[in-house]
Amino acid sequence: MAPVITILTDFGTADGYLAEMKGVLVTLAPDAQLVDASNDIPPQDVELARLTLARYWRRYPPGTVHLAVVDPGVGSDRRAIAVSSDQRFLVGPDNGVLSPALLLPNAEAVVLQVPRGASATFHGRDVFAPAAALLAAGRPLSSLGTPCPDPLIRRTPEAVRIADGVVRGQVIAVDRFGNLITNLVTGSAATVEIGPHVLPLRHSYASAAAGALVALTGSSGLVEIAVCEGDAAVRLGVGRGTTVVLRSASHG
Amino acid sequence: MAPVITILTDFGTADGYLAEMKGVLVTLAPDAQLVDASNDIPPQDVELARLTLARYWRRYPPGTVHLAVVDPGVGSDRRAIAVSSDQRFLVGPDNGVLSPALLLPNAEAVVLQVPRGASATFHGRDVFAPAAALLAAGRPLSSLGTPCPDPLIRRTPEAVRIADGVVRGQVIAVDRFGNLITNLVTGSAATVEIGPHVLPLRHSYASAAAGALVALTGSSGLVEIAVCEGDAAVRLGVGRGTTVVLRSASHG
Amino acid sequence: MAPVITILTDFGTADGYLAEMKGVLVTLAPDAQLVDASNDIPPQDVELARLTLARYWRRYPPGTVHLAVVDPGVGSDRRAIAVSSDQRFLVGPDNGVLSPALLLPNAEAVVLQVPRGASATFHGRDVFAPAAALLAAGRPLSSLGTPCPDPLIRRTPEAVRIADGVVRGQVIAVDRFGNLITNLVTGSAATVEIGPHVLPLRHSYASAAAGALVALTGSSGLVEIAVCEGDAAVRLGVGRGTTVVLRSASHG
Repeated sequence: MAPVITILTDFGTADGYLAEMKGVLVTLAPDAQLVDASNDIPPQDVELARLTLARYWRRYPPGTVHLAVVDPGVGSDRRAIAVSSDQRFLVGPDNGVLSPALLLPNAEAVVLQVPRGASATFHGRDVFAPAAALLAAGRPLSSLGTPCPDPLIRRTPEAVRIADGVVRGQVIAVDRFGNLITNLVTGSAATVEIGPHVLPLRHSYASAAAGALVALTGSSGLVEIAVCEGDAAVRLGVGRGTTVVLRSASHG
Repeated sequence: MAPVITILTDFGTADGYLAEMKGVLVTLAPDAQLVDASNDIPPQDVELARLTLARYWRRYPPGTVHLAVVDPGVGSDRRAIAVSSDQRFLVGPDNGVLSPALLLPNAEAVVLQVPRGASATFHGRDVFAPAAALLAAGRPLSSLGTPCPDPLIRRTPEAVRIADGVVRGQVIAVDRFGNLITNLVTGSAATVEIGPHVLPLRHSYASAAAGALVALTGSSGLVEIAVCEGDAAVRLGVGRGTTVVLRSASHG
Repeated sequence: MAPVITILTDFGTADGYLAEMKGVLVTLAPDAQLVDASNDIPPQDVELARLTLARYWRRYPPGTVHLAVVDPGVGSDRRAIAVSSDQRFLVGPDNGVLSPALLLPNAEAVVLQVPRGASATFHGRDVFAPAAALLAAGRPLSSLGTPCPDPLIRRTPEAVRIADGVVRGQVIAVDRFGNLITNLVTGSAATVEIGPHVLPLRHSYASAAAGALVALTGSSGLVEIAVCEGDAAVRLGVGRGTTVVLRSASHG
């Protein structure tokens, strides 16, 4: 079975940076299957990249290599790392983008060396892609760098606040459909509140009339607020960081 | 020869939904070749998705599986279907997106079961991708679901109106170049009229001077109105639904 | 080893043109690995396509076929060509997009015949993709067309002007991050000037404080002006064509 390398960047495609990086992958790992996860992460949005990676990295088969390059600190002293976690590999900067994998208890990481002659502005091409290709070709993680005893940067989801049966969280992402994704898990909640709106939890987007607000449990188990056949972010004029409250039936 | 799975969605890529779906495909059909058709269909634009699918589905080899997920009704009682038509397979919601294949006389369809535990908001990942992967892996269509005797939703192109040698149609799509694609077939037409403009039929975009309007037969045989090295939709301020008239030489 | 075909277009993806072209490739070269370089070149921007291709074409293994279709002159008498250069193949219109390969001394080119029945608006599908597929399948270049003695269109980078130890160049591209890419090679330069700003040459984007302007040597060896964690094009309100000056330490 051909090894899989997935690619997540904030490069876009038009400038050719992505194509350069793929050239390195194809050259060093000619048998690998390249899968574009996304190259449209907004520039330098490490937080969204982390959330996006969290959605997909364990959906791929053991042995998959996930390359994730959203790297505002390229060329600084931020470390370049490769990680083994839950039978998958991940390669990217030590800026929190790989947190979903690093937060598992058995994750192992090595620090990649920056080769002489590497560009100070493009480690995706000169550091991360070569490491990803070597992992896909079967090289052991330990051969790629030095163990990394210092703490790595781990970004964790915002904590929710619980008091009196009320759970207070926030919008952590707005997706392409304008759905507001929160950090709240449904649990025993009966209603979802955002601004002046009190919404019962429904089954699906189509549970409301077209154009109406609807709250539901999204596909990764988190509470979402949407507009049926519309855009909730535009409708409500809100975005990341907006407070959302869950209230259970027994609390008024 | 590796089976091919093409992917058409309105997901964009940044949110990770597409990457999740590809993870399911790679896991269940490791030998398949994944081809991104488009993930940039505007959110919930079933009509454009249908037109786009019509352009390409028969350009792929027999056995190809076309996955098409533009699915505003996900989680409602709209059916999930898999289709065999002209030696290709198609998988998606029963909302008209698969019409180009369903309109052929020998098309067969089955209704896919929604597995227990499937997300009510993401059948792309939990229903359609697994079915597409099984078809790519060689499983017969009939094993994937139950025959579908009820009428399926078939969207058909807008009919043109013909009277006195004049054919009246409309703009059905505006492409990335601002070209206005109509539902009109050239036939014996001599001139194309849009608003106050009367245009002779030309050979190619470059048949007009840079910046000039030009009418021609596009690459799927339909009349198009373009601006040489420019954008006809912006120039004319029109879009889908605008009336376009064909007049033959013998009618004044 | 599977042959690689890379794809560079200004098609976007939503209209289905790209998917049609990929269908031709998959049908005629079923063993090839398709790699999306970019389909987001701005419509008809041959100049950016040329710069983008220059970044990546030699990063791929010998035998790779680079398909590059940014083709405002489709259907006119501009020629369709296939090129062999430095052990790679390239296919596209004779409008300068393939210049990076044509400028090498041993480049060879043939003129492709437009088959009867080819659309006058879509040579990507009907002329270029079939030629790319044949090259990927091992057909010799000479079998695809007739030798091309006439001069081909070669676009060259803007020349810089050197006087009194001062080198005057310009911004040739603005990338997705808002970085201003120039046609200047660093050499012995000490400072970079753009408008009223005089900037020392730094090591990396992160060499300046967040929000500050920084000049550095980019990943293809050209001088770049950036804003650390920001967008230099927006900050300075400039774009392609803006003058940039390099001054060496010994000149004042």
